[in-house]
Amino acid sequence: MRRLWCCRNVRLILGYCALCEHEAHLKIDGRPYRSITLAPDGWSVEVIDQTRLPFRLVIARLATCEAVAAAISQMVVRGAPLIGATAAYGVALAMRKDPGDPALASALETLGATRPTAVNLAWALSRMGEALRAASPDQRAAIAYGEAAAICEEDVAACQAIGVHGAGLIAQAAQVKGDGRVNILTHCNAGWLACVDHGTALAPIYHAHDAGVHLHVWVDETRPRNQGAALTAFELGAHGVPHTVIADNAGGHLMQRGEVDLCIVGADRITARGDVANKIGTYLKALAAREAGVPFHVAAPLSTIDWSAQDGLRDIPIEERSGREVTHVTGLGPDGALTTVQVAAPGSGAANPGFDVTPAGLVSGLITECGLTPATAEGLSRLRQRAPA
Amino acid sequence: MRRLWCCRNVRLILGYCALCEHEAHLKIDGRPYRSITLAPDGWSVEVIDQTRLPFRLVIARLATCEAVAAAISQMVVRGAPLIGATAAYGVALAMRKDPGDPALASALETLGATRPTAVNLAWALSRMGEALRAASPDQRAAIAYGEAAAICEEDVAACQAIGVHGAGLIAQAAQVKGDGRVNILTHCNAGWLACVDHGTALAPIYHAHDAGVHLHVWVDETRPRNQGAALTAFELGAHGVPHTVIADNAGGHLMQRGEVDLCIVGADRITARGDVANKIGTYLKALAAREAGVPFHVAAPLSTIDWSAQDGLRDIPIEERSGREVTHVTGLGPDGALTTVQVAAPGSGAANPGFDVTPAGLVSGLITECGLTPATAEGLSRLRQRAPA
Repeated sequence: MRRLWCCRNVRLILGYCALCEHEAHLKIDGRPYRSITLAPDGWSVEVIDQTRLPFRLVIARLATCEAVAAAISQMVVRGAPLIGATAAYGVALAMRKDPGDPALASALETLGATRPTAVNLAWALSRMGEALRAASPDQRAAIAYGEAAAICEEDVAACQAIGVHGAGLIAQAAQVKGDGRVNILTHCNAGWLACVDHGTALAPIYHAHDAGVHLHVWVDETRPRNQGAALTAFELGAHGVPHTVIADNAGGHLMQRGEVDLCIVGADRITARGDVANKIGTYLKALAAREAGVPFHVAAPLSTIDWSAQDGLRDIPIEERSGREVTHVTGLGPDGALTTVQVAAPGSGAANPGFDVTPAGLVSGLITECGLTPATAEGLSRLRQRAPA
Repeated sequence: MRRLWCCRNVRLILGYCALCEHEAHLKIDGRPYRSITLAPDGWSVEVIDQTRLPFRLVIARLATCEAVAAAISQMVVRGAPLIGATAAYGVALAMRKDPGDPALASALETLGATRPTAVNLAWALSRMGEALRAASPDQRAAIAYGEAAAICEEDVAACQAIGVHGAGLIAQAAQVKGDGRVNILTHCNAGWLACVDHGTALAPIYHAHDAGVHLHVWVDETRPRNQGAALTAFELGAHGVPHTVIADNAGGHLMQRGEVDLCIVGADRITARGDVANKIGTYLKALAAREAGVPFHVAAPLSTIDWSAQDGLRDIPIEERSGREVTHVTGLGPDGALTTVQVAAPGSGAANPGFDVTPAGLVSGLITECGLTPATAEGLSRLRQRAPA
């Protein structure tokens, strides 16, 4: 096998590394990519600028903690696992510049304030803080880079395991369908672009597709930022997975008509009793799934579970984003340039909650790296006991 | 009172008529408009081109039956009651050109094939056909114009009555709220632009607002064609009604949080047992409303009831529109021109069902010109007995 990716993210040229045996699972035009990696200089960070996809594949180089914070805030990178991984590298960049205690505290604070809902951010920063506070300043940069790389590698492994476990559900659905294709509905983007590689909700789909299961994905466009139409459709298309983009409004109708066999979505935060915060609109699909008897699964690594939260509606902060994301839409203009158009009536304001909470009772099950788990306090408690420390 | 609108739609200059006492309820920049009227020539038809709103107020002149059919197909006019009214004028234009039996049959067929879901189209064409088949060809043009004008005037009166009846529900909600504002969620556009004047779902809102009720409207943007963000927000803004545009995904979250007191939507077809076909996504909001205990009302004139249909999922044809409406979005570009941008990944296809069916059990009640009616076979049966023949 041609060696393409370095498991330690060192001395790596985007898409190619001669040092180790890891290969990025996802490819664009046949070339393997991860959503985040170290730059060829060995210390700055390269990410795919997700505000430019699906029309431009632009690699953004982040060289400071502040640049990382801005990239997270402005959704150059997004997706709960990737936000955590990127923030970890933000701490590493800060430590490289100034490994002192005030700089560490400032980096953790700056990065922690970027986005409120995805708990992977707080999880990654807490892990970085614990690893670094105990170390002497002269060791901190090296430790931080190592910890950030470990977070990335663990995420890759977790997503790979999620893919294996979740693919079993799809295979079961395929057995029930016989010759027919399995129709899976997903919301937003929980693919490799939301993680480091593989994805959460999309990992089982890739895995099952690669194993020859006859499947098709309904891709919610996921307004207001269209992560489904732009990113999930892009990922699935690049991997050759049959899919169809739909307006977010269409999923209930399709479920009513028996056109959906299975829903799989990602998560930004899961409480200890199984409530799930995910991209706004997820809850509506969960309601429709229950009504139609369609299984509704949530795929996420353990780093997405907030063990301190119980009642999702009460305990999970929901990010309110700019109304301009609703009133304006960016896409590829007739001249081939990325163009923003206003769609709402001039003078009309907009509200833009970024996430909603799907109560545990609507979730058929959680797919984590440890396998399938009921979305209940008992199920999660057992999962916590089994999970690595 | 200054006389502005002719009740017979004759010798009328858009926005002004010296012949009768009717005044258009809805105004743009203080000038009264109806969504359809006869042109100053006395025979062709003028409509507001709704593909250009909210950024351009363009009056389109329709001079042939074929032009009317194209205007309906291309959604220059849309909204169940307005589709019916416009089609009626399409028959009148056909009769003016050729009042023979083959021309009548052809006009009814051409117009009937434009859009499948809104039953007002079939209702208006059936009414026109009945009135014209019995008449001699030399009388048909005059009869057709008279019948089309009558359909328009009856729609105005029906919508006005819907406004009065529905406003009572809003006033009740206001009493419960005390000092707080009543938050109403609506989907798509069921305002005066969807009718001839007043609107269906928006008529109660206008009526209550004009009566001093403290209210606020959550406007679902209503992808893929954004009739909420573009048309409903435009209407409400022009009338001074406080409102906020939201992504279609946000309504469930708002209902979970107690931010919605009442949902009112329009309808494209209501079955004899109370199932409701309306713009795609309506069903998801009805599910969320039931879950949150929020009343979910459907406002429509009797012409929207299909007495021959029972099971909405089985009996109502759902229009499948072009996937391009999902993959591309039109809005106001940075240069001030209407611009279409691609939002979905290149190479990804899209499905675009235009409507969905909300089962009667999710509908709190129907608001028609005859008052409030339970969305049940019994309620509708009583309504049919009370309705004018």
